[in-house]
Amino acid sequence: MEGCNSGSRHETNPDCGLISVVGTGIGSADNMTPQAVRALTEADVIIGYKTYLDLIPELLEGKEVISSAMMQEVDRCSNSFDLAESGKRVVLVSGGDPGIYAMAGLVLEIAAKRDSRVAIDIIPGIAAVNGCAARLGAPLMHDFAAISLSDLLTPWEVIVKRLDAAASADFVIALYNPKSKKRTEHIIQARDIVLSYRAKETPVGIVTAASRENEVIRLTTLDGMLEEEINMQSTVIIGNSTTFSWNGYMITPRGYRDKYTLAK
Amino acid sequence: MEGCNSGSRHETNPDCGLISVVGTGIGSADNMTPQAVRALTEADVIIGYKTYLDLIPELLEGKEVISSAMMQEVDRCSNSFDLAESGKRVVLVSGGDPGIYAMAGLVLEIAAKRDSRVAIDIIPGIAAVNGCAARLGAPLMHDFAAISLSDLLTPWEVIVKRLDAAASADFVIALYNPKSKKRTEHIIQARDIVLSYRAKETPVGIVTAASRENEVIRLTTLDGMLEEEINMQSTVIIGNSTTFSWNGYMITPRGYRDKYTLAK
Repeated sequence: MEGCNSGSRHETNPDCGLISVVGTGIGSADNMTPQAVRALTEADVIIGYKTYLDLIPELLEGKEVISSAMMQEVDRCSNSFDLAESGKRVVLVSGGDPGIYAMAGLVLEIAAKRDSRVAIDIIPGIAAVNGCAARLGAPLMHDFAAISLSDLLTPWEVIVKRLDAAASADFVIALYNPKSKKRTEHIIQARDIVLSYRAKETPVGIVTAASRENEVIRLTTLDGMLEEEINMQSTVIIGNSTTFSWNGYMITPRGYRDKYTLAK
Repeated sequence: MEGCNSGSRHETNPDCGLISVVGTGIGSADNMTPQAVRALTEADVIIGYKTYLDLIPELLEGKEVISSAMMQEVDRCSNSFDLAESGKRVVLVSGGDPGIYAMAGLVLEIAAKRDSRVAIDIIPGIAAVNGCAARLGAPLMHDFAAISLSDLLTPWEVIVKRLDAAASADFVIALYNPKSKKRTEHIIQARDIVLSYRAKETPVGIVTAASRENEVIRLTTLDGMLEEEINMQSTVIIGNSTTFSWNGYMITPRGYRDKYTLAK
């Protein structure tokens, strides 16, 4: 369709279609919002990485589905724009929340590059950090930092600086992409950086394949965390100086001052 | 019910009832997951702060509802345990994601204090940080820190240290509780700390009452942010050194290296 480039966010061309960016949340459609499900229901075309599409088969029935392999994110996004600019309602599916380390950014980067006037709807979802925290108990009750250990697009020195800053200022730390088959040393360095500021008994939670059939939840410590299985499906949450474990739960108090008493 | 104290997470007593901790997500039930809605549907008693319960009237119909006022969080939680220990299925409702600066932590703190064997189910939801990011575009595509500016339970010096650490290490920064009627200076100090590390043109997004009728979205800069309305219903997201604005969207690229090209 002509004229589908150059427009403002509030001056989209209705003939130019729509790209909705949707996340599967964690596990299954049981963790997707009505808003996200509605986008899929109303879609002309659904595009996504096969692993995520496989989590929501009931939402794909009767739909045109374009399933693609890992590492083709840019092609997937460009394809979405081509289809939307021909007037279609396209849903691009990612895992978790599309707005946290996922596809929302790439869609908007490409929109900016194309100066597109396709309507774009980013629909929030349950991110790994939210979902894994819930499975562990309540580790994110106080200030936290999310850090990806993947140095594919970010220099390792930048990541080290962030680990150091977050550890020194007593943030709860959520590690994304903690370890892959090729990248096994980063998690060791990350652990050592945090250990230089915090006690070895500091609680650490590891959730792998959150809310899926093969889910594994491990509650350990900074000292013991490297003995646990950690892989690309894992999220690692390291407590702050006040985080404690009780009865299999990881709990960060909501403050430092004894300003509230807990009735028994 | 006797014997509802002392038990392990995996040895809860089925006679001791259940506390499910559920968030309203942002805006309305349109942002709640099926898992969260099911907990409400199956509840014997629903307990929550009135402001949040008012967002989901359709889910309260025919239910026993205990609505309470702000600042009674501890009483609300203790009440939930009393009811659950008498065998009831209780749902405690908070805003956003109960696991991020919300009720999940207090419930588990009180469970630990009572050494309770009530089953506890933390159900993740759409947090303000996820919801507001989606409304702004894609600001959280890279490492980010969430920091609350409320010094009610945390010394201000700790908050300052975190602001400094997050700013120095180029985290995207999400500010919770940025400003209240009484607490108006913290946001100014926070802005000045970040400004000592980042350019004054750094994009800043302010979302107030996300996805509600009175929602306001503002895309501004570090330099201009203090001229915008910010209140207790606002979340402020400050970009990192690579974040840019395009067409009303706030976009953080997913990396620093030019390792990917964007097809036009």
